[in-house]
Amino acid sequence: LSLEHSISRTTAVESYERLLAEGYLVSRPGAGVFVADELPEDLQHVPGMQNVAGSTRDNIQQPASPWLDMRTYLLPLAPGMPAIDHFPWTVWGKLTNQICRERPLNAISYGDPLGEPALRETIAEYLAVARGIACTPRQIVVTSGSELSMAFAARQVASPGAEVWFEDPGYPFQYPMLADLGLQPVPVPVDAEGLDVSAGQWLAPRARLALVFPSHQYPLGVTMSMERRKSLIAWAEANGAWILENEIDGDYRYASRPLTPLHALARDRVIYCGSMSKPLAPGLRINYLVMPETLLGKLTMLRTTLAPMLTQLVLARFSASGQMASHMRKMRLLYGRRRALLVEALRKEADGLLDLDDLPEAGLRVVATLRGNLSDMRVAEACLAAGLKVEPLSVCYAKVPRRSGLIIGFASTPEERILPAAKMLADVLRHCMQTNLA
Amino acid sequence: LSLEHSISRTTAVESYERLLAEGYLVSRPGAGVFVADELPEDLQHVPGMQNVAGSTRDNIQQPASPWLDMRTYLLPLAPGMPAIDHFPWTVWGKLTNQICRERPLNAISYGDPLGEPALRETIAEYLAVARGIACTPRQIVVTSGSELSMAFAARQVASPGAEVWFEDPGYPFQYPMLADLGLQPVPVPVDAEGLDVSAGQWLAPRARLALVFPSHQYPLGVTMSMERRKSLIAWAEANGAWILENEIDGDYRYASRPLTPLHALARDRVIYCGSMSKPLAPGLRINYLVMPETLLGKLTMLRTTLAPMLTQLVLARFSASGQMASHMRKMRLLYGRRRALLVEALRKEADGLLDLDDLPEAGLRVVATLRGNLSDMRVAEACLAAGLKVEPLSVCYAKVPRRSGLIIGFASTPEERILPAAKMLADVLRHCMQTNLA
Repeated sequence: LSLEHSISRTTAVESYERLLAEGYLVSRPGAGVFVADELPEDLQHVPGMQNVAGSTRDNIQQPASPWLDMRTYLLPLAPGMPAIDHFPWTVWGKLTNQICRERPLNAISYGDPLGEPALRETIAEYLAVARGIACTPRQIVVTSGSELSMAFAARQVASPGAEVWFEDPGYPFQYPMLADLGLQPVPVPVDAEGLDVSAGQWLAPRARLALVFPSHQYPLGVTMSMERRKSLIAWAEANGAWILENEIDGDYRYASRPLTPLHALARDRVIYCGSMSKPLAPGLRINYLVMPETLLGKLTMLRTTLAPMLTQLVLARFSASGQMASHMRKMRLLYGRRRALLVEALRKEADGLLDLDDLPEAGLRVVATLRGNLSDMRVAEACLAAGLKVEPLSVCYAKVPRRSGLIIGFASTPEERILPAAKMLADVLRHCMQTNLA
Repeated sequence: LSLEHSISRTTAVESYERLLAEGYLVSRPGAGVFVADELPEDLQHVPGMQNVAGSTRDNIQQPASPWLDMRTYLLPLAPGMPAIDHFPWTVWGKLTNQICRERPLNAISYGDPLGEPALRETIAEYLAVARGIACTPRQIVVTSGSELSMAFAARQVASPGAEVWFEDPGYPFQYPMLADLGLQPVPVPVDAEGLDVSAGQWLAPRARLALVFPSHQYPLGVTMSMERRKSLIAWAEANGAWILENEIDGDYRYASRPLTPLHALARDRVIYCGSMSKPLAPGLRINYLVMPETLLGKLTMLRTTLAPMLTQLVLARFSASGQMASHMRKMRLLYGRRRALLVEALRKEADGLLDLDDLPEAGLRVVATLRGNLSDMRVAEACLAAGLKVEPLSVCYAKVPRRSGLIIGFASTPEERILPAAKMLADVLRHCMQTNLA
């Protein structure tokens, strides 16, 4: 295949890995690789039970202060948390040990502030194969988290006082992050096609930067249409503005092919932001940016963005050996099963209590609207008290009228705990409705 | 001993470890622990040669942009870099592997945003035993670097527009870091007793915060006098202001006992900042703060400060098993030897080319003034071209008249490379002087 298409063997292998990861190919040991009988669109079968490493509940203590809540992401239904019950511990320990035997000084000194070169190479290869994003390792900047990535990107292209578009509803941390940098955050409404570019042009035509989540919008799960992608790029090009394309959890798609990334359409105006939190684990604290070539000479960097060096080396080796692709392939199948189980369980148990949105084509979560005029904050708090982690939808809104709803994750919850969790969620909702009416 | 003084066995063991680490006790295998014949003050003997793991020079590539220079910290004489040639790789690999076998979910999820509880416990114990700093693990906040720690602390106690004292000369990153937070940085001169508190009171009496390095000032190496400590605290108490006490590299002392930390004198007005970069390795990205009890209820936290979780667990185990104390003890002896060797080599090779300041009582670096009206920036660049990393002194100054000098590290340079490095530095200086006169 590599000879036939004049591509490297690595690229050919990775194309296979990617098609396997996306579910379009299946591997039959001893026989070879075949086109899947069951295409990704059809995956709705019931999974077998699995052992879960450790109980998640036991690790939670009462938080001393509200922001300690981050520990609650170990609870069932936690949105945004991948299947950390399937973390490749054995390989990780072995690779770390292997690297420690080699004693690489760059793993314990400051290292390259752009990130470990070996890791940047594997990221560039992954993006080329899996996303059609052409970039060189020089363009990659590894950081220690998505907030740091976005702040780093915003700092490069927008001066204090400049306006910046962000999606409404969207990630709640965007407003304070932009304001902290002295920028003027401008909420721009999102509809069924993604960010409303005309609204943005009307609200702040001279904005320097637009933060968007085109492949799987947060929290609504919308995929930005090609028309919108084109008009966003046209606006940016006409105004010399920049686009920050976030693909935080778009790695996992369950239906339809992904649309071409903005980066592939206009690589000189788009900064692409990806993460290792969803494909692997958020505790790694590894996120990355693809910077446009034109910005490379002018980057200003702070030591604060540095990601842990040894972790970067381990991750680079995990990717280069093909184990990352294989892990993602397994997780894609697992998430397809967990998503189907959760939707089935919610339809059965919480019928009449909440309305599920259309199933998102990608990502690790579903969104549901609450009935009976319930406060989603109150419901989320009651869920926490009952040992479940769901997120209120209303906190994602800036100016657009708030919708009371829940963001519910399916990726981190072991299969056998999904139905009990859905039952418990239904109980909490019934209880909230009763006390609401009383 | 623990029965005699009604302290826990752990505390007794750790007191021994600390006295061993500081060089006041020596351990004779099979015989017991004894008061050292050679007290820390006297350590000037010539070391044996050692094998160095890997060449540092080979890892350096030409930087594509000036801030890529951080990789040059692997070169000989790099200031601020500990002995990464003595990093405990074997134990580190083994502990990581051990933890991976236990599959702790909190190591790969977001974990506790204050930092891994086990690590915070070992830090609190270390501070009590080694520094006389009484605090509970609840007060400790683990972050991913000293800049993040300082920004976090400043954010808690100073609102945008507030004035903040910082030492002049001092760490160059302080000004942009404070300005980025919307604060007004006020440079306050440093003299032989440390920060000039009267000057600070004259310049900005209403400042909300003072950033100081009392145990080993950066870059001058001054230890703040007890009188100054008291007047700084008196100012803070009278004005409801805060003190950020940085002890980034004060863990290693070669002469005289350390003075009581500011934190031990006024724990309600002092935020203490310590680091694992100098005791172990900067690539770990682990730094920590001790927050006053009174601030605990009001902390605002960003996800951006999170340190890598798995690293925190490994470090906690490394400390709890006594291996951190033992590593620091070995390093203290090693640094005593490297410091003596460097000073001897510079006196021999660079006589007439630079004037060494008085030897600092602590830390990992020496400061020298340049002769012949040489630009320290130019000398530092010429050193880099010759394969040496020294830092120019002048960039540390804000308003105080600049001094042209070099900050020279001894901790990371293997013994057998110190004399060659000093010779090379002397060659560079001679060359710079010749071209300067030409």
